[in-house]
Amino acid sequence: MPVQLDEATRSFLNEPHVAVLATVSPTGRPQATPVWYLLEGDEIVVNTSKGRVKLHNLEKNPRLALTIVDAKNMYHYVQIQGRVVRFDQARGARDIDRLSMRYHGKPYAYPGHDRPENRVTLVIRPLTLSGMGRR
Amino acid sequence: MPVQLDEATRSFLNEPHVAVLATVSPTGRPQATPVWYLLEGDEIVVNTSKGRVKLHNLEKNPRLALTIVDAKNMYHYVQIQGRVVRFDQARGARDIDRLSMRYHGKPYAYPGHDRPENRVTLVIRPLTLSGMGRR
Repeated sequence: MPVQLDEATRSFLNEPHVAVLATVSPTGRPQATPVWYLLEGDEIVVNTSKGRVKLHNLEKNPRLALTIVDAKNMYHYVQIQGRVVRFDQARGARDIDRLSMRYHGKPYAYPGHDRPENRVTLVIRPLTLSGMGRR
Repeated sequence: MPVQLDEATRSFLNEPHVAVLATVSPTGRPQATPVWYLLEGDEIVVNTSKGRVKLHNLEKNPRLALTIVDAKNMYHYVQIQGRVVRFDQARGARDIDRLSMRYHGKPYAYPGHDRPENRVTLVIRPLTLSGMGRR
C-alpha cells in the first residue's frame, strides 16, 4: 500500500532540497548518491542516465530509500522507502530539464558524455515515511 | 582491501558535514538516515543507539554506504562504501559526546528515551570511494 504524504511533508518535499537515493546491488551492497527529485502527485520523480550504478541496481531490485535532509537544518529530514514503479525513457530528456529548471532555473547542461536519449525517469511510489523534526 | 583516502577527501571529511548512512535489511530493503561521523585515522566513526533499524541491519549485513554532501554546494559529495569492522559499546557514550562536541560544541543532550549505556559506536572501514566535484 502506498503511504499518504501529509501536507507538511509535501510542503517540505516541494522545496528543492538535495536527496540521497540509496539502492542495493544484486550482491547486497548498498549504494547512495545525491539526486534531484520532484514530487508529482503521490509519486516522486528522479532522473538518471543509462550506465549508472543506481539504474543497474534498481532494475534488479526496485526497492530504494530516498532521504531528504534540510540543508539549513540537518535535524529536519524525511526518509521515504519505496520502489520504482516505472522506468520511463520516453520522458527522460524532458524530465531532466524539468528537474534542472526546479533546481537551477534553466534546462539541463549536458556534460560531454551524456545525451538526451540516455536519460531515464524513475517513477517512485512511497511505501513508508519516517523522519525527524518534520514541520 | 581498504581504500586510501586522499588528502582532499580527508580535508572534506574533517569538516562537520551531515552524512547519510545507507544500510540494507535482511530482506533486501534499503534504509538511509542522516548521521554524524568522525574520521579517525583511516576509519570512520559513527554512533547509534540500541534498537535502531540501522544497527539491526548492520549486525546482519555490515555493508554500508556513507554519503556526505556539502550543504553549501550539493554538487560536492563523497560516497564511501565500506563495512562495519567493530561494534563497540564500551566507547559508545564517550563517542556520542565527541561527535556532539564536533557538531555542536557541547556534550550530547540525551532525549528522554535514550541513555549512555544504549549508545554503540560503529567503526567503519572504507572500501571504495567515489564522488563528484571533490576538492
